[in-house]
Amino acid sequence: MKAVRFIEGGKPPEVVDIARPEPGPGEILLKIGGAGVCHSDLHVLDGAVPFKGPFTLGHENAGWIEALGQGVEGWQEGDPVAVYGPWGCGQCHHCQTSAENYCERHASIPTMGGGLGSDGGMADYMIVPDSRLLVPLKGLDPSDVAPLSDAALTPYHAIKAAMPQLTPDATVLVIGVGGLGHMAVQILKATTGARIIAADIDAGKLDHARKLGADITIDSSDKTAADEIRDLVGGRGVAVALDFVGAQPTIDLAASVVGRDSRLSVVGLAGGVVKYSADNTPYGTQVTIPYWGTRAELMEVIALAESGRIKAQVEKHALADAPEVYDRLREGKVNGRAVLVP
Amino acid sequence: MKAVRFIEGGKPPEVVDIARPEPGPGEILLKIGGAGVCHSDLHVLDGAVPFKGPFTLGHENAGWIEALGQGVEGWQEGDPVAVYGPWGCGQCHHCQTSAENYCERHASIPTMGGGLGSDGGMADYMIVPDSRLLVPLKGLDPSDVAPLSDAALTPYHAIKAAMPQLTPDATVLVIGVGGLGHMAVQILKATTGARIIAADIDAGKLDHARKLGADITIDSSDKTAADEIRDLVGGRGVAVALDFVGAQPTIDLAASVVGRDSRLSVVGLAGGVVKYSADNTPYGTQVTIPYWGTRAELMEVIALAESGRIKAQVEKHALADAPEVYDRLREGKVNGRAVLVP
Amino acid sequence: MKAVRFIEGGKPPEVVDIARPEPGPGEILLKIGGAGVCHSDLHVLDGAVPFKGPFTLGHENAGWIEALGQGVEGWQEGDPVAVYGPWGCGQCHHCQTSAENYCERHASIPTMGGGLGSDGGMADYMIVPDSRLLVPLKGLDPSDVAPLSDAALTPYHAIKAAMPQLTPDATVLVIGVGGLGHMAVQILKATTGARIIAADIDAGKLDHARKLGADITIDSSDKTAADEIRDLVGGRGVAVALDFVGAQPTIDLAASVVGRDSRLSVVGLAGGVVKYSADNTPYGTQVTIPYWGTRAELMEVIALAESGRIKAQVEKHALADAPEVYDRLREGKVNGRAVLVP
Amino acid sequence: MKAVRFIEGGKPPEVVDIARPEPGPGEILLKIGGAGVCHSDLHVLDGAVPFKGPFTLGHENAGWIEALGQGVEGWQEGDPVAVYGPWGCGQCHHCQTSAENYCERHASIPTMGGGLGSDGGMADYMIVPDSRLLVPLKGLDPSDVAPLSDAALTPYHAIKAAMPQLTPDATVLVIGVGGLGHMAVQILKATTGARIIAADIDAGKLDHARKLGADITIDSSDKTAADEIRDLVGGRGVAVALDFVGAQPTIDLAASVVGRDSRLSVVGLAGGVVKYSADNTPYGTQVTIPYWGTRAELMEVIALAESGRIKAQVEKHALADAPEVYDRLREGKVNGRAVLVP
Repeated sequence: MKAVRFIEGGKPPEVVDIARPEPGPGEILLKIGGAGVCHSDLHVLDGAVPFKGPFTLGHENAGWIEALGQGVEGWQEGDPVAVYGPWGCGQCHHCQTSAENYCERHASIPTMGGGLGSDGGMADYMIVPDSRLLVPLKGLDPSDVAPLSDAALTPYHAIKAAMPQLTPDATVLVIGVGGLGHMAVQILKATTGARIIAADIDAGKLDHARKLGADITIDSSDKTAADEIRDLVGGRGVAVALDFVGAQPTIDLAASVVGRDSRLSVVGLAGGVVKYSADNTPYGTQVTIPYWGTRAELMEVIALAESGRIKAQVEKHALADAPEVYDRLREGKVNGRAVLVP
Repeated sequence: MKAVRFIEGGKPPEVVDIARPEPGPGEILLKIGGAGVCHSDLHVLDGAVPFKGPFTLGHENAGWIEALGQGVEGWQEGDPVAVYGPWGCGQCHHCQTSAENYCERHASIPTMGGGLGSDGGMADYMIVPDSRLLVPLKGLDPSDVAPLSDAALTPYHAIKAAMPQLTPDATVLVIGVGGLGHMAVQILKATTGARIIAADIDAGKLDHARKLGADITIDSSDKTAADEIRDLVGGRGVAVALDFVGAQPTIDLAASVVGRDSRLSVVGLAGGVVKYSADNTPYGTQVTIPYWGTRAELMEVIALAESGRIKAQVEKHALADAPEVYDRLREGKVNGRAVLVP
Repeated sequence: MKAVRFIEGGKPPEVVDIARPEPGPGEILLKIGGAGVCHSDLHVLDGAVPFKGPFTLGHENAGWIEALGQGVEGWQEGDPVAVYGPWGCGQCHHCQTSAENYCERHASIPTMGGGLGSDGGMADYMIVPDSRLLVPLKGLDPSDVAPLSDAALTPYHAIKAAMPQLTPDATVLVIGVGGLGHMAVQILKATTGARIIAADIDAGKLDHARKLGADITIDSSDKTAADEIRDLVGGRGVAVALDFVGAQPTIDLAASVVGRDSRLSVVGLAGGVVKYSADNTPYGTQVTIPYWGTRAELMEVIALAESGRIKAQVEKHALADAPEVYDRLREGKVNGRAVLVP
Repeated sequence: MKAVRFIEGGKPPEVVDIARPEPGPGEILLKIGGAGVCHSDLHVLDGAVPFKGPFTLGHENAGWIEALGQGVEGWQEGDPVAVYGPWGCGQCHHCQTSAENYCERHASIPTMGGGLGSDGGMADYMIVPDSRLLVPLKGLDPSDVAPLSDAALTPYHAIKAAMPQLTPDATVLVIGVGGLGHMAVQILKATTGARIIAADIDAGKLDHARKLGADITIDSSDKTAADEIRDLVGGRGVAVALDFVGAQPTIDLAASVVGRDSRLSVVGLAGGVVKYSADNTPYGTQVTIPYWGTRAELMEVIALAESGRIKAQVEKHALADAPEVYDRLREGKVNGRAVLVP
């Protein structure tokens, strides 16, 4: 079968022919319906994360069950499923509650997930090591679902943790209306009554944000952006700030507009640092850098997509086009999310 | 000034002229903009609640500050405000967290609230005993806000307590799409991603529910109603059932469709009893009969109205028409909520 | 190997020799260290639960891993483990968050757990169908741990759900200081600052409760019991009532002393019914009948035992003595919990 | 009456005779039973907080109601009470839920509280501006209670926010076992089942911590402190770190031992900065700098003291000795908390 392979840090991905794998006991063989092409893969390809290749890329996967390994019960061949991406030990307290994204043994287990240290979904078929990592789909096309398993799950996780603060009289600020941010606006609109301010440096993205449900948009390249936001929220400040960029200027913008007892969640990893002291950030602010989401949250995200409340903007490509798609991603030319469809 | 007075249980309300009150130290004099006409007033008038008259009716009030008693700070004459209805002691743990609806001294304090044991808002002016009971309004007309302080706050409170169960993959059942139920549908739509099933015996109300955001409607007079709902939710069952009728058949319907670890909230008080044992209701169901809501929740309800996410259907009348309006209410002829406007 | 078998409803258990099972793919063979003898087994033996025999009894199990089926990773032979008892589908939202006790497919899956429809732990060896159902032990003897998996997990689950109400200024009432109740007192003492009132009809059990941490004890056979409790808690009422008996008089006692916005959790199943209407129980009370607990909670229970904060009172017996032990249990002659040790 | 006055930043406090105040409408005159001497007063005296004097110092106050201003209801002369310290606007969403410590108008209201911008409790009498700021005492001596209103409330607030993470299988690290830290250890012991590690540079304080309930103590001046802690907690890491020092080394120690999805709460304000990026702190850590506590939490703290579960170590002095007591505080010679007793 065809597969898009990570070779080693610093080398481009290669599209090669490899043997179709067989599911061992407890494993599931998945026929891939779609594999999302994610920005974090660029870090992997660049060698910024110390993975040892080669392995098949692709950590945003969905498809149909092709074959069940011995001992797998409760699933049928042909079932459409999404694959939960961050694979943990399955045993620790976090994993037991489905938060494998915070597995307590992440430093000692062999892989962070398919496509992140072991074979992922940019191939005709993929092995999922345990059925606990599958989420059933109802009516959705797997190629539409694949990117939700990261691009929607990650903002959903950040938003869900902030729910107690997302009351209807509160304001939430979304910085960066790209792949994750445009999902965040939809999720906020679908699941909270909070007022949504979206900030970006791109006027087109702000237009898009308004269409998706943002109540107010702010050009964050404008020097007065922080003042404009403070005028809107008054003494209370922004209750929840979600920074999908994570560069120093966006982190500083967020820190300067949140109120006391607020939440500042830095999701984007563009190298910024939150410097938190009582002098520069209001008391009681909860600063966090969340990672991906839980399996139960993925079920909830898929339910939002199935009811039509959220929708990823997707462009689809063949596996063979992967190298070119990665290049376009690096150049910022992908609109929404790219998905490889075998 | 004119006032609509409760005389004693079993007697009709009287519209009389009484002296305009003066605010004592710590009190606020409110110029009434609107006072909602509530079903529970009929219980008061009928003598079902043992109040001692006479006092002015009206427990859903909003208006403008006319005068501040000595020692009241932080408010200005002319400020538009809503009045929080269930008055507690202000001291106990519940009152301290704004849940005066569950005041621990409710049995020993002199009044349950203005219009519920002491003078309420069906008059030109009303005394509010403490500024903590006021919620500021921004752009809304007090006569539109008045009914929200009960008809929206009560379902909001029931919904907010159920939030952990109202995930996007869950189903919520609203039984009774009347005064409170039609607000519940809007609040659920505005603040959760859950699937909403609305059930009523009136086809017109079901139409209305669909317009307000219900995903599915069920004729609850149909003998197959429970089966239809069970087909929709499968083994999981209904995650949250909100019964705004509270008669035995509606309670039994709700109890027969909720799933394990669900919530059954009986808001309507039509005389039904929840009989809960392991034989007849799933394990882990949390059954509750909530009462009104908290002051902080009233702020959130008003924010929903100010952003246009919820809207009460209101018909407005003069104070002098109160006896006739109560008659129409008793006969089920009021559409939405009636509000008396001085 | 020797096994204690359920034959059919109405027949006594039989101690027989059966073949030692082999673990299939994904399964684990456990060498049993202890299997708790539970009251609910009497219901099974009496035929009150419609199980189809024969199968090995024992749903409170702990031991050591004897052999791993193919495909089981992350565990070693010899590891001491407790077995999580309520087996769900593993797939649904509840199971994904470790709440298999509320599995959404409980009505359609083949067994409620080992010893509850399929082979349990009253034998030399037992098959556990999936490693997700194991909880690692550190220093504890499996024969001491076995009863914790039900007798401590069940009250822990009821208590954990009530945590928001178990503040240090609140009062919790424990009715029935038997097998579960004496664990509840210890768990409350170890994990909350709430004032603990223990009620029982047996003076010896009340003495025991005081030694385990109850602040106040009440003879619940006394007609003035409710008045005594009301005097202690005043207008606030009991914040959390945990009824480990569940007979009509104990349920009625609990309902008559809880306050507004309280929690009434009926854990014991002695046939009582909670009849909840606004007339007879305070507004906002959350009435629930919980079932067992979650896998994550079992980890927390075991941690409490490992740190010495809770301890089950255990008497140990040989497998061969099972019929006699069940007789003694039925006659109320077992002190604390009986455990069968192969 | 005698009063300890702040004159201006950089000047020592003065003990002077001033007129006894009279309570205006809505106010309460308190006869002071005790006023705590707090480290943060040194910042005030040094001019580090830009207050405008003169005013009476003392923000940890308790006593008896001497006189009620007009319009104050629900309280009696002679009632023993504690004073809630952080005074907010009383109107905003945070204040409505009793979290005046996070008042949304803190920047525009005239005082941060008695002793913090306006007259406090280091005097024979004190005016409390609103009865909502009083918490009733039962059997405790006000001079013992006074320091709890800050030295116990502040750690209680930090601990309560971390409750979901303080499960019995989790480890909490308390850094700095001084005035606040020694209360934190007691509160953790009284209200959670978590394992407590206490770290300090003073062996005597570590001895004290063990007596108060710490399970393990660590000399934080030891270079291997972080390694020792990591050995104790393994891959899971510390679930909650409470830093009551807040210097750079203690913040860095905490950040290096917490696990994923943990909580790092910096309570001490010794000038350190949390620099949080994905490189240096685990994903999902919630970093926060809390401030004081809520009124409802103060009720809970007092309940813990009334039941004997926590106890502040107090040394008592006369008002006239205030200047000397502040000198001793600055020199680190006060054991536990100093309280001025008129």
